[in-house]
Amino acid sequence: MEETMFDYRQYKKTYFMPPVDCYDWVKKDCIDKAPIWCSVDLRDGNQALIEPMSLEEKLEFFEMLVKIGFKEIEVGFPAASDTEYQFLRALIERNMIPDDVTIQVLTQAREHIIRKTFEACKGAPNTIVHVYNSTSVAQREQVFRKSKEEIKQIAVDGAKLLKELADKTEGNFSFKYSPESFSQTEVDYALDVCNAVIDVWQPTPEHKAYINLPTTVECAMPHVFASQVEYMSKNMHNRDSIILSIHPHNDRGCGISDAELGVLAGADSVEGTLFGNGERTGNVDIMVLAMNMYSQGFDPKLDLSDMPGIAATYERLTQMNIHMRHPYCGKLVFAAFSGSHQDAIAKGMEWRKEKDMDHWNVPYLPINPEDVGRTYDSDVIRINSQSGKGGVAYVLDQSFGIKVPKKMREDLGYAVKAVSDVEHKELSPEEIHDIFEKRYKKFVPDFDIVEVHFRQVDGIQTTVTVEQDGVRSVIEAGGNGRLDAVSNALAKHFDRSCRIICYEEHALQDGSDSSAIAYVGIEGGDGRNYFGIGIDPDIIRASIDALVSAMNRSMQ
Amino acid sequence: MEETMFDYRQYKKTYFMPPVDCYDWVKKDCIDKAPIWCSVDLRDGNQALIEPMSLEEKLEFFEMLVKIGFKEIEVGFPAASDTEYQFLRALIERNMIPDDVTIQVLTQAREHIIRKTFEACKGAPNTIVHVYNSTSVAQREQVFRKSKEEIKQIAVDGAKLLKELADKTEGNFSFKYSPESFSQTEVDYALDVCNAVIDVWQPTPEHKAYINLPTTVECAMPHVFASQVEYMSKNMHNRDSIILSIHPHNDRGCGISDAELGVLAGADSVEGTLFGNGERTGNVDIMVLAMNMYSQGFDPKLDLSDMPGIAATYERLTQMNIHMRHPYCGKLVFAAFSGSHQDAIAKGMEWRKEKDMDHWNVPYLPINPEDVGRTYDSDVIRINSQSGKGGVAYVLDQSFGIKVPKKMREDLGYAVKAVSDVEHKELSPEEIHDIFEKRYKKFVPDFDIVEVHFRQVDGIQTTVTVEQDGVRSVIEAGGNGRLDAVSNALAKHFDRSCRIICYEEHALQDGSDSSAIAYVGIEGGDGRNYFGIGIDPDIIRASIDALVSAMNRSMQ
Repeated sequence: MEETMFDYRQYKKTYFMPPVDCYDWVKKDCIDKAPIWCSVDLRDGNQALIEPMSLEEKLEFFEMLVKIGFKEIEVGFPAASDTEYQFLRALIERNMIPDDVTIQVLTQAREHIIRKTFEACKGAPNTIVHVYNSTSVAQREQVFRKSKEEIKQIAVDGAKLLKELADKTEGNFSFKYSPESFSQTEVDYALDVCNAVIDVWQPTPEHKAYINLPTTVECAMPHVFASQVEYMSKNMHNRDSIILSIHPHNDRGCGISDAELGVLAGADSVEGTLFGNGERTGNVDIMVLAMNMYSQGFDPKLDLSDMPGIAATYERLTQMNIHMRHPYCGKLVFAAFSGSHQDAIAKGMEWRKEKDMDHWNVPYLPINPEDVGRTYDSDVIRINSQSGKGGVAYVLDQSFGIKVPKKMREDLGYAVKAVSDVEHKELSPEEIHDIFEKRYKKFVPDFDIVEVHFRQVDGIQTTVTVEQDGVRSVIEAGGNGRLDAVSNALAKHFDRSCRIICYEEHALQDGSDSSAIAYVGIEGGDGRNYFGIGIDPDIIRASIDALVSAMNRSMQ
Repeated sequence: MEETMFDYRQYKKTYFMPPVDCYDWVKKDCIDKAPIWCSVDLRDGNQALIEPMSLEEKLEFFEMLVKIGFKEIEVGFPAASDTEYQFLRALIERNMIPDDVTIQVLTQAREHIIRKTFEACKGAPNTIVHVYNSTSVAQREQVFRKSKEEIKQIAVDGAKLLKELADKTEGNFSFKYSPESFSQTEVDYALDVCNAVIDVWQPTPEHKAYINLPTTVECAMPHVFASQVEYMSKNMHNRDSIILSIHPHNDRGCGISDAELGVLAGADSVEGTLFGNGERTGNVDIMVLAMNMYSQGFDPKLDLSDMPGIAATYERLTQMNIHMRHPYCGKLVFAAFSGSHQDAIAKGMEWRKEKDMDHWNVPYLPINPEDVGRTYDSDVIRINSQSGKGGVAYVLDQSFGIKVPKKMREDLGYAVKAVSDVEHKELSPEEIHDIFEKRYKKFVPDFDIVEVHFRQVDGIQTTVTVEQDGVRSVIEAGGNGRLDAVSNALAKHFDRSCRIICYEEHALQDGSDSSAIAYVGIEGGDGRNYFGIGIDPDIIRASIDALVSAMNRSMQ
């Protein structure tokens, strides 16, 4: 073997295919019924934090989990440390566990640890005692240095002790067994161990036991895991008395897929965490799983509408951050900077308003951002040098009620892009508004119209007083409307084209006391179009101001 | 419909199953040959940045991609903005494109944009012109308001123009077509459009064309996408003359799985980005795909050994951050805080040293962190209140060459855990070393041994001078060795047990001029064990100091 460190030849597959093909799951295309969600935030999540949570922080996290709707919550490894023991006692003694919530406690399959675990649970309304031992080839050979039979015996002895102590201890106990490192265990051997445990427990459909299959280290593709789960599900003793659970990690970035395909393959329950916290690359993110169901029209049985609140509490208590591209909750996951995306979203939103407000099907937005507490204004259409005219128009409309005419958008779009390109940054709605006003209104003009009068004779006759360089001139002209007449006056006075190619006007706010904004575009005689705006409580004055701005631009 | 915003009933599935079952891919369990990797960092990645990269930044990013080993690199949308146009010209005019690297340029299927794109490419050695139009139901209905036939015609017209201009323009051109929003397009319709494009291009096995299938918005499970890809692959015209590419996004958190299952289903090429940058939740992360292959023993054809360097450059140029749990490169992805994980890793590393240095199979570590520029010291075994004795011993060994005896580890482990628990934080190796020294050596003793003499008569006879509270006492005692004799002297003088239950000693550094460290444990007579250490160039003095410390502890 070469000395280089980056050499793929030092690796081999560490997973095992089931002894027979198990691909029935592939024929289902979606999860239409929520599995039982089991949060392991307070155990697997907490133990992977740089600074684990304090007792009070854990209590607050527990309350958040209950509020979201979790019915099974692993609360720790009470025999492992005094902190975890005290946390469990606090939950019980302060009566913080609702009747419909079952707590879960983890224990290794070792006698003194199991005994201490039962002690810690006294008085809890409903408890799952979750016992595990490690079954993978590497763990058997390297860590425990025991044979397959010896490892199985550890599981069986643990299972027996659970049964014995549950009978003796006050409380309602269920049992869960995990062949830890299942993902690197021979599948038929894992089945053998699980069945031996089930044979001890003798669960019934009325009093089920749990078998939990972890991808302790994710080392295979998700469809391999699904086949493993299907094999286990099909060959498990007392299957109708078992709640089959899975516990995916994310080392290959496929935790979500493991969980989803695992559920198709027969899993009834999923263990995971909020935002995918957990050892190394994390546990599977239950929020993404739930939102994935939600986005396809199925009830996830968790309420994630206050995602920003959940995210803030999570970040404060765990001191972890949520990535900007984390599905459904990252800061950028609803953002569209690109012009073509912005245009499609704006058109999709318009279509929705006209055609089908009851369903969501807007391009580039898998869900309505408002469902999870986000806003169109600040989260969706965002403007930088990649953005187009549609996005700019959308932002001005959303933030300022300014409805830029279609014909004017390209001119504005290029102006905004140029600023963003040169300044090399994202532009806020306020900055865009500023560019808009400076380009079309707030610049130093060559001339102004200081007075206008109209008479209604053969169409409209106007008397326009133009002031330029301190000199006033009075021009008479006619037209088929007021704006047309003024444009003819300007064309005559300056002896250049002032042909109106675009005029739109609307109130800036609702109500009669509000200002109107007018948009005017003219053909400047040089083959180019020039635009201006005017804002005034009087709609005629606003439109004349817009025309004057456009004409000034054409002359500069 | 109810008024609540969090209502799953407003959603429907937006994907389509292929017209016939396509599940052959499920029988393959891994990717054993690297697909053609196509980086879209400079296009899809760049356009999703809050602040897109400047020209010089893009050039630096391009050079990094070349160095990693990318042979196909999408360099932008040169007709979309002057910046992108200039970037492409700079690449060409500065001769920055190696002969074995093909650049790719994106263009909408619109005549003036295609023409400008070809202009921008003049003089490039090898170019893929990548033309697209959107084909999904929502885009056809809401954005383009065109029929299926009209949308297909846009693709065909674009394909014809590409062919025409390629013949006229200097350079070696290949063609790529994307039915954009493929993931939300009827699969047979997407096939129909792609085949119409292929029929225009008439590719041959010698001069292939590309068909690229994007999950523009990821809206289905990854196995659904794989079935779609398999259907397309099986029914595509001139299949042996087509490079079938996929372009997964990550809206459901399954981008990696889409890519992997898509490759099993027939894709020859994958478009993606470094660290999964890209629109919204990002494009598929090519580094994770490559490392996933690597971790199973297959050559990914990219060199990612300098992952920290790549990460630093990426973060600087994009101003994005990499999440702490990002597979293979996040700060925490090799970290083990939990005691049982630390113990297994330490045993696995030991086993590896003894048994099989050529292969990697250490529990809880999917790859050797050193392969990607990480270190065991700072990245793997990290100590907080969740950690155990094994981890603490490992850190002292790795960082200070201190080999804490097995019998002493529990005592030390509890001491470290207590500090971490109370201070509620992770402890650095220096802080652990400090706890170790303060507990076993650097405390104020009740007594000290100020002088010792040995004579070799009937075993060892010793004369020990003890100083306590300023008073010196001289004690005579014997033993079968020096340390035994001193321990007997102390037991006699203080009239309490000083039975040695543990003694180990080793040089602290290599070389004869280095100090030795001695560890001594005694049974204190109260049923508990007490430990001390001594450090001295003289091995006898070190061991006596250790014994004195242990005895002092037992008396305090």
